[in-house]
Amino acid sequence: MSRTTIFRVDVQWGDCDPADIVFFPNFQRWIDAASLDFFHQCGLPRWRELEATRGIIGTPMLEINTRFYKSATYGDHLEVHTTIERWDRKVFVQYHRVVRDKTLLCDGRATRAFVQRVDGRLQAMEIPADIKAMCS
Amino acid sequence: MSRTTIFRVDVQWGDCDPADIVFFPNFQRWIDAASLDFFHQCGLPRWRELEATRGIIGTPMLEINTRFYKSATYGDHLEVHTTIERWDRKVFVQYHRVVRDKTLLCDGRATRAFVQRVDGRLQAMEIPADIKAMCS
Amino acid sequence: MSRTTIFRVDVQWGDCDPADIVFFPNFQRWIDAASLDFFHQCGLPRWRELEATRGIIGTPMLEINTRFYKSATYGDHLEVHTTIERWDRKVFVQYHRVVRDKTLLCDGRATRAFVQRVDGRLQAMEIPADIKAMCS
Amino acid sequence: MSRTTIFRVDVQWGDCDPADIVFFPNFQRWIDAASLDFFHQCGLPRWRELEATRGIIGTPMLEINTRFYKSATYGDHLEVHTTIERWDRKVFVQYHRVVRDKTLLCDGRATRAFVQRVDGRLQAMEIPADIKAMCS
Repeated sequence: MSRTTIFRVDVQWGDCDPADIVFFPNFQRWIDAASLDFFHQCGLPRWRELEATRGIIGTPMLEINTRFYKSATYGDHLEVHTTIERWDRKVFVQYHRVVRDKTLLCDGRATRAFVQRVDGRLQAMEIPADIKAMCS
Repeated sequence: MSRTTIFRVDVQWGDCDPADIVFFPNFQRWIDAASLDFFHQCGLPRWRELEATRGIIGTPMLEINTRFYKSATYGDHLEVHTTIERWDRKVFVQYHRVVRDKTLLCDGRATRAFVQRVDGRLQAMEIPADIKAMCS
Repeated sequence: MSRTTIFRVDVQWGDCDPADIVFFPNFQRWIDAASLDFFHQCGLPRWRELEATRGIIGTPMLEINTRFYKSATYGDHLEVHTTIERWDRKVFVQYHRVVRDKTLLCDGRATRAFVQRVDGRLQAMEIPADIKAMCS
Repeated sequence: MSRTTIFRVDVQWGDCDPADIVFFPNFQRWIDAASLDFFHQCGLPRWRELEATRGIIGTPMLEINTRFYKSATYGDHLEVHTTIERWDRKVFVQYHRVVRDKTLLCDGRATRAFVQRVDGRLQAMEIPADIKAMCS
């Protein structure tokens, strides 16, 4: 069974729109923060260290499928539960569940790659075995 | 062949992250703006008028699948091309293509519903025939 | 001596710009969240309750002076220290200090008013004595 | 009389908060975009070119005083009028007026510096004479 981390979010007034609910791109913002937090909780250093030591710039998003089941509003306390569902040679799939109490509000399945800069352009690299081991 | 609208975006410095590329939730923000702009270009009034006259609050996102093919950065001029791919009884699917010149950067297929407030809660309604006619 | 509250912020990757530092409007976003958090820590209910019971919509910003002394970046843990410096009849001045460890990064002096909706327009009201008492 | 540029903003649904008005940090986001647009309209290249050719990273914000006179909402078409009010040796003051039709909604007086990276840290530099000449 794969490792799961929890990232906490307190929904703010400014995260909500005139319908009084969270403007949906903010869920993606929190999913992005949860993705990075997952790697830190697994023991990886900040991107700026990984760039200096190993040339890894980050894990840009390649595809994300997000479903919204229930809305959230300011004052809500949310948790983003994150795990890695699948590792391929160059990409991995992270699964994020945004919950309030025990209720699932939104989930997202995100495909990302570790990238380095080659001749000025971002390029996907083979997933390093040690990183995979730390995060499984 | 269904109607397609174009929504223009000039990428700003503040839309980009430390990797020097657009932080991906901003693509979702622009897709949301393009979705609403589509309805205005088709002749629908603002949500606040639709709420006053017909109780329609907006078209919250139910599911969005977004794929990122190439990155964008500040100074880029983008276009979001939007069309409605499918109408069901209570939901519709909008398809958004974000392009720079002729290059596809990102696309998103979004399922939404027209909602009204019933007993304080947002609830999907049958898609009004006149709105469907205006937007096809 | 006036009451001071602390609001915590973990700086995220997406809060930073291509210069690798926090994009400054995000400081304003956190100052706004700290302003509201101040009132909750003092015992005020959410705006939606205050609107229902007393017609108070919120405390829109009238003027803010923000100074930036040092930059912050992703991975930083910040605190926003908030107090009310002055109460006038219809406006109050909140003072926010954003610190990392013991270092002041940014501060903001913000003038706001409690508003209600009168004939569809937001209008400043006299500051209720009980609210002033709770927050001093 | 100093040069003035105009930067246009169409207010989006997602820029507004539950009070149905623009969430104020978004005004700061537009002021930042207008600041950079001013330099481009005056003939300066993008930051990434200025960094490559002259080591200039950007013009971080040092202080901004913003006053809000009237609110804006989605569907509004705004203009940010930008000029440089004062040039000192190492800092300059930009003045931004956000207007809708002929009505002033918000203005901001912003102190910034051109910076370069010295030993990994951002440091203000003397304002280059040619840049000052282009922008006056």
